[in-house]
Amino acid sequence: MEMNDMILISVDDHVIEPPDLFKNHLSAADLERAPKMDTMKSGSDSWIYEGRRVPNFGLNAVVGRPPEEYGMEPASYSQIRKGTYQVQDRIDDMNVNGVLASINFPTFPSFGGTFFLQATDKDFTKKIISAYNDWHIDEWCGAAPGRFIPLAILPLWDIDACVAEAKRVAAKGCRTISFLDNPVPKGLPSVHSDHWDPLWKILEDNNIVVSIHIGSGAQVPYSSLDAPIDTWIVNMPMYIANATTDWLFSPVFKKFPNLKLALSEGGIGWIPYLLERADFTYKHHKAWTNCSFGDLLPSELFKRNFITCFIDDVFGLHNTHFMNVDKITWETDYPHSDSLWPDAPEHLWPTIKHLPTETIDKITHLNAMREFGFDPFKHLPREQCTVGVLRALATHVDTRPVANMGGHNPSNRDGRPVTNGEVMKLFA
Amino acid sequence: MEMNDMILISVDDHVIEPPDLFKNHLSAADLERAPKMDTMKSGSDSWIYEGRRVPNFGLNAVVGRPPEEYGMEPASYSQIRKGTYQVQDRIDDMNVNGVLASINFPTFPSFGGTFFLQATDKDFTKKIISAYNDWHIDEWCGAAPGRFIPLAILPLWDIDACVAEAKRVAAKGCRTISFLDNPVPKGLPSVHSDHWDPLWKILEDNNIVVSIHIGSGAQVPYSSLDAPIDTWIVNMPMYIANATTDWLFSPVFKKFPNLKLALSEGGIGWIPYLLERADFTYKHHKAWTNCSFGDLLPSELFKRNFITCFIDDVFGLHNTHFMNVDKITWETDYPHSDSLWPDAPEHLWPTIKHLPTETIDKITHLNAMREFGFDPFKHLPREQCTVGVLRALATHVDTRPVANMGGHNPSNRDGRPVTNGEVMKLFA
Repeated sequence: MEMNDMILISVDDHVIEPPDLFKNHLSAADLERAPKMDTMKSGSDSWIYEGRRVPNFGLNAVVGRPPEEYGMEPASYSQIRKGTYQVQDRIDDMNVNGVLASINFPTFPSFGGTFFLQATDKDFTKKIISAYNDWHIDEWCGAAPGRFIPLAILPLWDIDACVAEAKRVAAKGCRTISFLDNPVPKGLPSVHSDHWDPLWKILEDNNIVVSIHIGSGAQVPYSSLDAPIDTWIVNMPMYIANATTDWLFSPVFKKFPNLKLALSEGGIGWIPYLLERADFTYKHHKAWTNCSFGDLLPSELFKRNFITCFIDDVFGLHNTHFMNVDKITWETDYPHSDSLWPDAPEHLWPTIKHLPTETIDKITHLNAMREFGFDPFKHLPREQCTVGVLRALATHVDTRPVANMGGHNPSNRDGRPVTNGEVMKLFA
Repeated sequence: MEMNDMILISVDDHVIEPPDLFKNHLSAADLERAPKMDTMKSGSDSWIYEGRRVPNFGLNAVVGRPPEEYGMEPASYSQIRKGTYQVQDRIDDMNVNGVLASINFPTFPSFGGTFFLQATDKDFTKKIISAYNDWHIDEWCGAAPGRFIPLAILPLWDIDACVAEAKRVAAKGCRTISFLDNPVPKGLPSVHSDHWDPLWKILEDNNIVVSIHIGSGAQVPYSSLDAPIDTWIVNMPMYIANATTDWLFSPVFKKFPNLKLALSEGGIGWIPYLLERADFTYKHHKAWTNCSFGDLLPSELFKRNFITCFIDDVFGLHNTHFMNVDKITWETDYPHSDSLWPDAPEHLWPTIKHLPTETIDKITHLNAMREFGFDPFKHLPREQCTVGVLRALATHVDTRPVANMGGHNPSNRDGRPVTNGEVMKLFA
């Protein structure tokens, strides 16, 4: 096996919604009231809904820029690669990166759809969420069968509506819903309550994965405003360890033993430490905390129900024997700034090639296929799905960095470190 | 080598201050105004200073109880082992646990002395802090040469006073000061400012380690009030990863390359992941964040300046080659609830015995001796310092758990999980 023989499925990428997102999925009357794309005098493109503006439509959609021009906020469609919002260009960008299939998290609604929690007309907003899901499943994923694992967002403020929408999208082929790593910071009931049980039941019955993306509910606190932004970037993935413990010690997987949870963008190298710490805590403290995992240890429940993933994780890939190798998956995080596009295979191969071929196949695609119930080989012959073959389809794709694309790049011209405070101002 | 041949130095334990703490270190007039021990009608013992009461004098000083009676708050001296507050009994408890030497963090002043930040009479409070340090260094550590690594706290609100006190305790043999993992949540300047530079200079010049204990500045957020307390316990050590990144990307170790920072109670298994993530972030983002480590990588700076420690960490001890094996140390956390007293050697040995003898010696004592500039063998012949010999001195020590000791045990009699909310009420 060599690099070009890998088959790559990425379980965490992002779509920038195109301006005509709702066009084919709402009546003319409803379209009037739907979120609309607006170009501001500054040239920034942003969504408006019920008079409320999403501050920036793209959260660091920086692929295709030179690293000097990375930053938090490209502000208009003219400043970002077409592959971020046009599906045929996205397929090109996947091919040139050797990626067969991908899960695409939302952008303007936030990872878990939490933008809609603040809507005033909640009934109408349910229609908007359904239209969003129809666009995502039918139009975006539907454009290229076998290339996208369909994801949906839910009207989180209404458990009955969540259940109804989950049923509806399940029937349309949805394979994962984007939930929150912790619903409490958004004013929703915790995963320790029984509030969400009807949703877990539907998802378990339909083998639909709960994906919790880093930053979707709880936010990494800034250590201080004068700290370099690098500190925040470093800490973000592993911060999901707190949410991992929260779900692990919740009743969810004791009640719904076949439900699966994916820790999107969480990395893997820290997981064996956390599992050992969870087992230590359980054995050492359960006599007074009344904690019970029945016949299991916390680490065993984790290995049964939790799907993990990584962008680049040498340490984790040297310690797969401390994890469940059937639950490790991979991601590219396109088009965010941690993405290694268009060289993801060149980064992955040297870090994974020491593993047995069967293990490489599991981590690169077989685990994602099994856990998300997704079979691209129904649509595309396996031998046409490798890095080498997909890249051969993309020789026309120009991947050279484009400079001076514009946007709110916070980089200090005088060479001072960019601080948390300076980045925060961009969102103010 | 076998278990009884290990020589153990613990870099993180705790002292419960005795009621007569200040007696020998202040004038009669000053003693009148010093913090005083008061027994409340409830039977709880607590310190009072300037009319302000420390809610509970002991933070889970639970060694010697059956696990069913662990909890957050033993409330009086009669409810805790004498070894927590009487030094000769402490030596017995160290001997019976095979521990040669120990660093003891404060209890009522908080780990980093932050209780005194709210004092009204700041000048008088400097005297109190000096008296505290004199008691700790001369009386507590002085009672048994070679058995304690002297630690000090500082008047954190006044940088000049910090420097003066650091100089003073350095001359008295202090080897580490207890600082905060992050000073910002306590209203102090960050480690990115140059505010603390005169302190770092004195500490570097005197080879005094900065110890940052988990929970000393930043607190692990509760995921929700109805989450089991186990989630909070699990997450506490690794939460120091956020502070680690903060110090790592600060100017501190670029300006003071010989200053050492100890991550007290942080564990080690997650560290290689964090270092890889820090290097990835640095290489991937420095072009726009203006971050610079000069000739080093972040991981290399960490390995040069950061001292790590663990209570129990199988995964970490299988990955020492991803760390700096000259900076890994060990701890028992006596008398807190994570402590494995009196069986620490029985837990440590099976997890460390696969390593070469020289590596075991480094981790168990040689690293702590070198990094903290502490030589117990000046006082005690090396061959009398092993687990086996120390334990032979402690055959009279009764380690049997004592039940019904009292205190605020939050355990629910009906078997329901103890939640964050129920534990919070104990502090209200």
